[in-house]
Amino acid sequence: QWTLLDWKPRRPEMLTDPFGLGRIVQDGLVFRQNFSIRSYEIGADRTASIETLMNHLQETALNHVRSAGLLGDGFGSTPEMSRMNLIWVVARMQVLVDRYPTWSDVVQVDTWVSASGKNGMRRDWRVRDCKTGETLTRATSVWVMMNKRTRKLSKIPKEVREEIEPYFMDCSPILDEDSRKLPKLDESTADCVRTGLTPRWNDLDVNQHVNNVKYIGWIFESAPAWILESHELSAMTLEYRRECDRDSVLQSLTAVSGDGADDLLDVSSVECKHLLRLENGAEIVRGRTEWRPKYINNFGNMGQ
Amino acid sequence: QWTLLDWKPRRPEMLTDPFGLGRIVQDGLVFRQNFSIRSYEIGADRTASIETLMNHLQETALNHVRSAGLLGDGFGSTPEMSRMNLIWVVARMQVLVDRYPTWSDVVQVDTWVSASGKNGMRRDWRVRDCKTGETLTRATSVWVMMNKRTRKLSKIPKEVREEIEPYFMDCSPILDEDSRKLPKLDESTADCVRTGLTPRWNDLDVNQHVNNVKYIGWIFESAPAWILESHELSAMTLEYRRECDRDSVLQSLTAVSGDGADDLLDVSSVECKHLLRLENGAEIVRGRTEWRPKYINNFGNMGQ
Repeated sequence: QWTLLDWKPRRPEMLTDPFGLGRIVQDGLVFRQNFSIRSYEIGADRTASIETLMNHLQETALNHVRSAGLLGDGFGSTPEMSRMNLIWVVARMQVLVDRYPTWSDVVQVDTWVSASGKNGMRRDWRVRDCKTGETLTRATSVWVMMNKRTRKLSKIPKEVREEIEPYFMDCSPILDEDSRKLPKLDESTADCVRTGLTPRWNDLDVNQHVNNVKYIGWIFESAPAWILESHELSAMTLEYRRECDRDSVLQSLTAVSGDGADDLLDVSSVECKHLLRLENGAEIVRGRTEWRPKYINNFGNMGQ
Repeated sequence: QWTLLDWKPRRPEMLTDPFGLGRIVQDGLVFRQNFSIRSYEIGADRTASIETLMNHLQETALNHVRSAGLLGDGFGSTPEMSRMNLIWVVARMQVLVDRYPTWSDVVQVDTWVSASGKNGMRRDWRVRDCKTGETLTRATSVWVMMNKRTRKLSKIPKEVREEIEPYFMDCSPILDEDSRKLPKLDESTADCVRTGLTPRWNDLDVNQHVNNVKYIGWIFESAPAWILESHELSAMTLEYRRECDRDSVLQSLTAVSGDGADDLLDVSSVECKHLLRLENGAEIVRGRTEWRPKYINNFGNMGQ
């Protein structure tokens, strides 16, 4: 009889989450989900792209809300939020990448929420290499509520607060918040400007708006090619100012600063400031990115 | 003692493939992998996009090659292919979609290969709803070999044939091949033309070439909005003619035919012909798509 009682799954992780949809851990306040990196999630240097990473963060956030039984009709909205036509919008996102995973690596994403001021919610993430436990990425974000009809920001109503507060962790952000003011770029201060950027059909999310992850691709459109080729993104702070929809035409501006800017052969790190704006000047996203030199990856160049 | 011997995993699928990386089934000739549809893989109508579907097909093809122990240094190349600087390129792809899955659905993708003429390989896929077993998608494709340095097509060398032939299934394509000739469109025969399409940094794959799945987004760029809004893609045939790289500037042409073309309120199906070409006229992809009316999805519009 003891054999049955004593039997323990050797892979408890997989038995409790067979389809990789994630589950609540740690006293019910942390949501955990594994992702195996797929071939189409890696870029030219065979590592997961920053968009892939951000997609995994988005997915765990949504699954966290669903696992908590708080998913209303919308995309991450609670039942009370749905009733009051409120949706979450991201105001700020800060990401620090220590190492990018590669094809078929499995990463473990933990996420949790806490209060942010009176009318915001903070959501943090830690991404680990599933095999080694090494932290690959940390991210922190601030979310606020918007009325879906008026598109105006809203305070968190009492009814919603009662729904979500039991899930708040009382802890500091996983990252020191980068409180340096992000400058407003224009033609005279930017080094590169790309105009005429438009959403593709598949950039639209279920609200027919451009998903915030897609903005990153547009930011990169004005990043100098030499940076994209020789460096990898190590840190990013984005401030979301305004929505953009399917008919928007955007401009992407980048200013390069930091040690590497004056010397293409310099292998030190580079900092960029970014602005996405509409053609009428309305700001969509301000951002700051930091880049470190890529290590030479012979694997990708064999036989070429 | 019998309890132990008699114990069977209730979820054998997950125990044998805990991380969802797939495995060989059915006498070693079919590769099977499950995918849970993630929030960022669905589009404005809450169903998986055709790109998502094609990405899953690509991923299973690569994992199949890897599972068979045939992965050389390249992306799907066998060791002998790597030695001879050969890569696989897709010449033709035909997809039939019965139903699109939605967020958190789990799909099961089966794939297998067979001979295609003297110098090609056919790869077929069947995608099922994991819960119901219902077939969602069938696809068949033809692949040929290209010399990575000269970019010229190559016969399949004897050494490579010996590597891959043991994995060939002797069976008919999962779809009746659509043998209708795809016409060459130009300005006078196309209904919509979009010019100036350029790859984004993240459209590039590990070979610094545009991944064939990305072409679909460009094809859609010249598909009329009324079709994208009111219809869903039910079938697609693509013929890949030429590579395109990061500096390419493309034009997308679409001609609409079929019953729905003359009447916006007509809810019958629509057929389109497509061409992606370089500005100098060189053809990249010819295609045909079929579209059926979307069902009204109230879920996506609640409260808006």
